Amino acid sequence: MAAYDFLSVRLFVDSPLGEGRAIALDKTQQNYLGNVLRLKAGERILVFNGRDGEFAAGVTLEGKRLGLSAQAQTRPQTPTPSLRWLFAPLKHARLDYMVQKAVEMGVGTIEPVITRRTQVSRINLERMRANAIEAAEQCGVISVPEVFPERNLAKVIEDWDASAHLVFCDEGAAVADPLATLAAMPQGPIAVLIGPEGGFDEAERQAIMRLASHTRLSLGPRILRADTAAVAALALVQAVHGDWRAA
Amino acid sequence: MAAYDFLSVRLFVDSPLGEGRAIALDKTQQNYLGNVLRLKAGERILVFNGRDGEFAAGVTLEGKRLGLSAQAQTRPQTPTPSLRWLFAPLKHARLDYMVQKAVEMGVGTIEPVITRRTQVSRINLERMRANAIEAAEQCGVISVPEVFPERNLAKVIEDWDASAHLVFCDEGAAVADPLATLAAMPQGPIAVLIGPEGGFDEAERQAIMRLASHTRLSLGPRILRADTAAVAALALVQAVHGDWRAA
Repeated sequence: MAAYDFLSVRLFVDSPLGEGRAIALDKTQQNYLGNVLRLKAGERILVFNGRDGEFAAGVTLEGKRLGLSAQAQTRPQTPTPSLRWLFAPLKHARLDYMVQKAVEMGVGTIEPVITRRTQVSRINLERMRANAIEAAEQCGVISVPEVFPERNLAKVIEDWDASAHLVFCDEGAAVADPLATLAAMPQGPIAVLIGPEGGFDEAERQAIMRLASHTRLSLGPRILRADTAAVAALALVQAVHGDWRAA
Repeated sequence: MAAYDFLSVRLFVDSPLGEGRAIALDKTQQNYLGNVLRLKAGERILVFNGRDGEFAAGVTLEGKRLGLSAQAQTRPQTPTPSLRWLFAPLKHARLDYMVQKAVEMGVGTIEPVITRRTQVSRINLERMRANAIEAAEQCGVISVPEVFPERNLAKVIEDWDASAHLVFCDEGAAVADPLATLAAMPQGPIAVLIGPEGGFDEAERQAIMRLASHTRLSLGPRILRADTAAVAALALVQAVHGDWRAA
């Protein structure tokens, strides 16, 4: 059983959390709790800030102003997952969707990478962060992944930290047992790279494959859209090397 | 390399296909090819009908009427995958999305199941079929999955074909190595069941687990939204038992 209460409302807050602490809410949060969810003073939700763990909190009302008062800690803070997620950003709603999915799948970083066939130039990092928080609220994640500014693929490769092993999801890879491929990887920090619709071009593919520590992963005989490939690849990585093996 | 040309336009047509055959297009198809894609007479696309394989086809123009003329077969028809997909339908766009994802992941059937916590009552089967066709066009699938009318979970269990093994994706299952769980399954036809947001209730869980041939699968320590769970579960099943192991 997923070891937390996933039926309660969960709210990300920026303020420090501790038993008995008052939590101020901004206008958006007050509107969400008061007008959308219609919560009344005394009702209980869960709050987290990505640093202090998850707490129960009671709704408070001072005049017309909704607030929260932290009660007992419900879960200690968990460390941010070491799993890094690099991806060519998609447009609009599908990017929102892809970021939410990656958080559900347990990534620790959200690292947009601009490739030759990437169709998006201007990245809205604040919107990505909002999507990451929304997914964390919904899926019981208490360590919100860090959103990185976009970088060009060439720069990512140039700056690559040799201690991290790159799982390179490549439409051009021959179909081969993905579990055996992943199981053969060295232990250590993992980064998963998902390309744009249309995949990587040959020069990009060659540059990636010059990285000392990489594994080229096939995701089956059908072309997957980038957001599907992200969930599928992360599921395989979590199942072979990640936190899906045991509680 | 995925063994087909995934850069060409691919169009699903209802008419029989064979080298030299003329293919009539309905108004929507003519508008798509002529006005959206701005294809001109003589340009080449790929067509499939789910029965006769995939063919190259040249755009023809009679007066103002766009049509197609089938040329050489580009891929023989593949059998419909035996992998069945049962799921509690979601609302609107997320249902469209989930159906498209399942087709990309290679399911052979699309079987909506009404459970106690399912929030959708009226299912638009034609819309599901349209989404399945769109995904097949985009992802190089040439056998379009069959869309079944919705059934209640109790009826699904009552009518269960004992030869099919049910992979029961259960938020209530203890987190345990999903690959070992899947590898321990008997060989034979597989059906994957994904519940609604909020999961199955206890009575439903018990009823499912009374099926002789079932495997209860955990999808990790985080609660996944139903559409994420569908892609993740299908990725694991394809990797362990399906067509992701070899071309």
